[in-house]
Amino acid sequence: ATETRRMEEEKPHYGLIGQIKALPGKRDDLIAILTEGSGEMPGNVAYIVGADVADADSIWITELWMTKEAHAASLKLPKVQEAIKYGRPLMAGFGVRVEFVPG
Amino acid sequence: ATETRRMEEEKPHYGLIGQIKALPGKRDDLIAILTEGSGEMPGNVAYIVGADVADADSIWITELWMTKEAHAASLKLPKVQEAIKYGRPLMAGFGVRVEFVPG
Repeated sequence: ATETRRMEEEKPHYGLIGQIKALPGKRDDLIAILTEGSGEMPGNVAYIVGADVADADSIWITELWMTKEAHAASLKLPKVQEAIKYGRPLMAGFGVRVEFVPG
Repeated sequence: ATETRRMEEEKPHYGLIGQIKALPGKRDDLIAILTEGSGEMPGNVAYIVGADVADADSIWITELWMTKEAHAASLKLPKVQEAIKYGRPLMAGFGVRVEFVPG
């Protein structure tokens, strides 16, 4: 049982998919800020940022976290706070937002 | 220049986010089929399958591929064909579908 439990523990248990709408012409800058701010976050397994092919203002982010708590804690990290501070003014709004349990 | 070119080549250039609606009660079976069928696909960098927390029938898949062509080719792989064959009857439909360029 310890084997399965240990394997279970190493698997991410929390995931997020979010759509951010950048202000027109600001998407590349916003992607750079988001990517920059997302390095080395404790408990983060994946942080995939993508530019929507069909919608020039849309950014999609898929995140994988060991736990929901690890994600919540990351929002207090200085680098993430900074990314929010500099990114917020380039954002027009949010779209799809999904929490998921990784399969 | 070769250094940047080589780094560029190793980065995935194509991404997909898709939402699949399972028939009621069939989501877990469908997730198992999708996860099973998605091992060892040439050119695939990430294949993240998640169960939507707020919608009991919704599955979200984030995929990262070295190229769009690698993704297209994967649809002909026997294991993927099999996943489609066994998965299709458990699907009620599709929702969000986005192509993106990884940042």
